[in-house]
Amino acid sequence: MSTESFNPPDRAGSPGRGESLARAVETIALVDHHVHGALAGDAPRREFEELITESNRPVPSWMTQFDSQIGFAVLRHCAPVLGLDPHTEPETYLARRHELGTDEVNRRLLAASGIGHFLVETGYRGDEILDPARMAAVTGRPADEVVRLESVAERVAAEGVGAAGFAAAFETALWERSRTARGLKTIVAYRHGLDFEPGPPTRAEVTAAADRWLRRSAESGTARVDDPVLLRHLIWKGIERGLPLQFHVGYGDPDVDLHRSDPLLLRGLIELAEPRGVPLLLLHCYPFHRNAGFLAQVYPNVYFDVGLGVNYTGARSVAVVAESLELAPFAKILFSSDAWGPAELHHLGALLWRRAMTRVLSGFVADGEWSEAQAVRVATMIGAQNARRVYGLGEEA
Amino acid sequence: MSTESFNPPDRAGSPGRGESLARAVETIALVDHHVHGALAGDAPRREFEELITESNRPVPSWMTQFDSQIGFAVLRHCAPVLGLDPHTEPETYLARRHELGTDEVNRRLLAASGIGHFLVETGYRGDEILDPARMAAVTGRPADEVVRLESVAERVAAEGVGAAGFAAAFETALWERSRTARGLKTIVAYRHGLDFEPGPPTRAEVTAAADRWLRRSAESGTARVDDPVLLRHLIWKGIERGLPLQFHVGYGDPDVDLHRSDPLLLRGLIELAEPRGVPLLLLHCYPFHRNAGFLAQVYPNVYFDVGLGVNYTGARSVAVVAESLELAPFAKILFSSDAWGPAELHHLGALLWRRAMTRVLSGFVADGEWSEAQAVRVATMIGAQNARRVYGLGEEA
Amino acid sequence: MSTESFNPPDRAGSPGRGESLARAVETIALVDHHVHGALAGDAPRREFEELITESNRPVPSWMTQFDSQIGFAVLRHCAPVLGLDPHTEPETYLARRHELGTDEVNRRLLAASGIGHFLVETGYRGDEILDPARMAAVTGRPADEVVRLESVAERVAAEGVGAAGFAAAFETALWERSRTARGLKTIVAYRHGLDFEPGPPTRAEVTAAADRWLRRSAESGTARVDDPVLLRHLIWKGIERGLPLQFHVGYGDPDVDLHRSDPLLLRGLIELAEPRGVPLLLLHCYPFHRNAGFLAQVYPNVYFDVGLGVNYTGARSVAVVAESLELAPFAKILFSSDAWGPAELHHLGALLWRRAMTRVLSGFVADGEWSEAQAVRVATMIGAQNARRVYGLGEEA
Repeated sequence: MSTESFNPPDRAGSPGRGESLARAVETIALVDHHVHGALAGDAPRREFEELITESNRPVPSWMTQFDSQIGFAVLRHCAPVLGLDPHTEPETYLARRHELGTDEVNRRLLAASGIGHFLVETGYRGDEILDPARMAAVTGRPADEVVRLESVAERVAAEGVGAAGFAAAFETALWERSRTARGLKTIVAYRHGLDFEPGPPTRAEVTAAADRWLRRSAESGTARVDDPVLLRHLIWKGIERGLPLQFHVGYGDPDVDLHRSDPLLLRGLIELAEPRGVPLLLLHCYPFHRNAGFLAQVYPNVYFDVGLGVNYTGARSVAVVAESLELAPFAKILFSSDAWGPAELHHLGALLWRRAMTRVLSGFVADGEWSEAQAVRVATMIGAQNARRVYGLGEEA
Repeated sequence: MSTESFNPPDRAGSPGRGESLARAVETIALVDHHVHGALAGDAPRREFEELITESNRPVPSWMTQFDSQIGFAVLRHCAPVLGLDPHTEPETYLARRHELGTDEVNRRLLAASGIGHFLVETGYRGDEILDPARMAAVTGRPADEVVRLESVAERVAAEGVGAAGFAAAFETALWERSRTARGLKTIVAYRHGLDFEPGPPTRAEVTAAADRWLRRSAESGTARVDDPVLLRHLIWKGIERGLPLQFHVGYGDPDVDLHRSDPLLLRGLIELAEPRGVPLLLLHCYPFHRNAGFLAQVYPNVYFDVGLGVNYTGARSVAVVAESLELAPFAKILFSSDAWGPAELHHLGALLWRRAMTRVLSGFVADGEWSEAQAVRVATMIGAQNARRVYGLGEEA
Repeated sequence: MSTESFNPPDRAGSPGRGESLARAVETIALVDHHVHGALAGDAPRREFEELITESNRPVPSWMTQFDSQIGFAVLRHCAPVLGLDPHTEPETYLARRHELGTDEVNRRLLAASGIGHFLVETGYRGDEILDPARMAAVTGRPADEVVRLESVAERVAAEGVGAAGFAAAFETALWERSRTARGLKTIVAYRHGLDFEPGPPTRAEVTAAADRWLRRSAESGTARVDDPVLLRHLIWKGIERGLPLQFHVGYGDPDVDLHRSDPLLLRGLIELAEPRGVPLLLLHCYPFHRNAGFLAQVYPNVYFDVGLGVNYTGARSVAVVAESLELAPFAKILFSSDAWGPAELHHLGALLWRRAMTRVLSGFVADGEWSEAQAVRVATMIGAQNARRVYGLGEEA
């Protein structure tokens, strides 16, 4: 619980124990299994504030996004990486950030994160952020790609295809686009909600839906796939593709109807997909992470993380991580930052997760419930090994 | 977390720090932005017990409401204000209460609450409790009014109006009734649920609904507005009126269908109302307060509090307050007691909130996550400044 | 909160206090108001692992169920009862278990649980586990029966009955079967969901539904009642029978659609049943236990526990128990283990509940919120007295 002091050594009466757990967690070469690129350019104050919230509205004049858990976490934890005192003022922080320049800021924050392998989802505003190759270049760590199904479909539409040819063109494009990808991702939660019919649509249904969608796209000049028949088609083709499939679940920007983003709504799909053996990875999940833990316990094909929620709850992320360690077997929980843009988000995603895991697991150890060896092993599973197994990444380089 | 001892100074190793935060929180002149009057008359045991629960059923013979978190909190925290030892017996407490008399009990408990400004919602059983003027007289602090939309409509019906004239009569009455009010309130959660159509109804729909309702009211002799068309009309006229609009959300008496009181159901209305710039204030929200925090993060026009849930969870209110400090920017969180009746509820609303904030924020400071200056500033924002800004109360008198 | 060290004496500065609360909780002769029999036979590793999860799928080759909160709890708390060190390896544990034999393992673990009275639900795979008489024989403590409504109906169908005679035959069988039972149980959550029509069906509806069901059962050769009309009929006949009625709520195996297992969905039934005065007991409730606490506060006929969730959250059960101590009056909360099979589950159900209660209540006492006398009294109410009153068990033998 984040309301308590983090002094497990003092409390447990055995100084070495808590500290060695902290050190072990500190040094895990994390696999960030769902992340986006770091910002390529500079971010003046207004833009920076808009990038440290899931709101897509302008920041009202009577407030600042720095007055939030994530804002305080930036000033506390990122300021020292840029050579400032913790709890500095926003102006000071942003001035220093500008002074150092984006390249140096990215380099420092990404290096300090200790992330050992990035799985970079490239489907959202990819021109404003570093692509996987540049992420690898900046960090010196491998950066593989996760391909967003909806982006592939929209690219197919944008490049021109008839309704009758859509299904085949999508399939070709998906296999082509994901040749070296480690995973796929769907944002059906944003485009429709998780309350969709679970089974795959028929070819005729797909063609009819593609016809409606392509006409509408031609009229509007923009191809945004939100037809539930097409979205289901994409998901089932993704399952056929056989790569681990990530689902946006729960918390996100206001495009999401959170009421229709409870992972429990995926039950039908999970059961239909179970015989395929494709790992389904539920991302973020806040505030439904306990529901995700239930699904991960009872269905062998379900995994989850609490990525986005860790960053945005800041000092409270200890509670969120603790709640993620209830029903699910430890082999079914992963780490991600879901960072997009400011490298502060990559850094905090890793740092807050490490701090939360250390505090929660130290508590279990201090209470006599877990051994320290168990704690270190579980942290390593969640921080890296589970993702290495699920995505077939092999041993750490 | 409420299961731990509150000794931040000892734990942080810097005695002065935690204590000065506690003192700062203790002395905030709170703005209670949603409260009702204190009980005007005496309360014998049966009545008192029925007033310290949200149940509207008689207390079963085999139990007492004193055996609950709020019951224990009354005996712990209110007894000393009446000159008794903490953890006294219910009989002793009620005898002392009777001996002092309601006026003295009200005076003592309201003064000890340290509430600096009351926004009094007057729509519920107003004849049994102090009105805003008497609340101000007893406390020596300003007490402004918040007007319940449904009460205005029911008064209009009771005073006699035809269906065709209802809309105009309601509008006139609303403007008249709210001339000096600071805010409006809707209990659509009680009367229908939050799963209503978000848009305003047409004038013809309103007249037809008013016709049905007024006929039914004439037959039954009681005008209780529960027609969703009329409720939507009231809400949209309230938004037109332009005062901050409070919504009962989540936990309350069994009239509420809690399953239909999740604030996420308000998404459509929030988005339609957003261009008006009217603050929408989600009250209580328990157990959906994390959902409310999400809405407050992503929508500039949404605010929330955890009022009622703080009182009724007593020793556990620390956890509820902690959970309210996750996604929402600190400028979007408010304090309220939602007290109705026994001044114990006003007192505990303030006291438990102060204790919870002190414990949670002391934990953040002791953990090195927040500075003490940040903690004091955020407590002051939530306790008073945000409400002063939203309701236009000006500086503290 | 489970992340903190359990050292209330040190923290409160009065060593004797926390310890005496711990001792008091330790010695409560618990009434386990919803439990199943202990495993009659041996459990090799594969079977044992499948019995310490709510998943009904085979354990994947790349993981072990021992790597979970409940797995760690078995190795921590049950190993010493079998004469091993805590945190032993699964292989060592299972070898020792086999060496001692099931009878000795059952005897040791059940005795160490300190459960004073078992209410044994016999409706699930009763041939693999000890029946109430054998549970009483092994433990030397009373073991009464709770009868599952659906099992009675399925037995009636299996023994041969026509649709027209079903209702009468079920009623006769129910009274016969429950002559000495202490309570009834329904698993409508598994068979349909809690979103059923609340009222009792008509006799004609029941006959028509029985006709459909009996035909289908004859065809399939297996009588599994999942028709909502019949399920409602069973529930209402159960309410007529007048014994306390238990509902599976929330978390369970993947047969349950958790999205349709929120206890708030029972509101209509609760209100219709209220005049009958039959106690309705909501079992488990995780992750909806706060919703159950609300229902238990506002409806006199509602009770709840957090049984199953305590076992499966292991070191985190402190948080689950803490969350169950919010809205509900303390007279409305009960203890259960919901153990089925390995006696480890019976033992952990009691042990984890005692530890969680001790930690949570010690925290309240150390914080100065509760007196120790209150804490001991509430633990005794929840652990034993409430169940004794609700089920009419009389004083402890």
